[in-house]
Amino acid sequence: MRQVDPRSGIHVLDRDECLCLLAGEQVGRLAVVEHDRPKIYPVNYALDGDEVVFRSDLGAKVDAGHRAPVCFEVDHLNARTRAGWSVVITGRLEDARGHDLPIEPWAGAKQHQFRIVSERITGRRVGPPD
Amino acid sequence: MRQVDPRSGIHVLDRDECLCLLAGEQVGRLAVVEHDRPKIYPVNYALDGDEVVFRSDLGAKVDAGHRAPVCFEVDHLNARTRAGWSVVITGRLEDARGHDLPIEPWAGAKQHQFRIVSERITGRRVGPPD
Repeated sequence: MRQVDPRSGIHVLDRDECLCLLAGEQVGRLAVVEHDRPKIYPVNYALDGDEVVFRSDLGAKVDAGHRAPVCFEVDHLNARTRAGWSVVITGRLEDARGHDLPIEPWAGAKQHQFRIVSERITGRRVGPPD
Repeated sequence: MRQVDPRSGIHVLDRDECLCLLAGEQVGRLAVVEHDRPKIYPVNYALDGDEVVFRSDLGAKVDAGHRAPVCFEVDHLNARTRAGWSVVITGRLEDARGHDLPIEPWAGAKQHQFRIVSERITGRRVGPPD
């Protein structure tokens, strides 16, 4: 944790810390732009090296993601201690055929696998550590 | 819960169920479009009737939200049981001056209060109930 904002108590996480935190979670939120409107979809994911990979059927979510940049967010929050972290990836979607990662979506089998080619990974932590 | 997809096990939640679930959480994720790119920001929120209200300083997040539609997502997930729910609001941001809701952002004081004027509230639940 390299930087702390004294007013907000926010710690800025470096890329390695972000990847380490991403590796420990299973669900993230994919945001795409559909007809000039943002839309958020929760997805189960796995980390393949430094890339997020998830399964999806074809449809609005990945159609929009192929046409435009995407954003992916993962967080871990503790309401009792008012603490948590959030990692945000901006990038673009690509097919991830040939990858064979153990992703089992909670919402049933999905036909296609996609990866997020990241342009930027940022993370912030607030409150006391867990 | 009115509809269940037998393949995915997804339950479609009605508006009242969505609002009830939103009332029990503190943090959601605001997606806006910035320069044609989606961006996600976690925010602490409160529910004022059927409207989400949150505090923010002025900046990219609310600048973008004033120019274009926004999406707001709240979920509650249980990795052990592979169950959870997600509620998604699409709408637009408005100033919420005059409201005085007990929102205390975990990341320090924020100067301005905004509300999400919803156009659509949808929710889904997957897996066994908590």
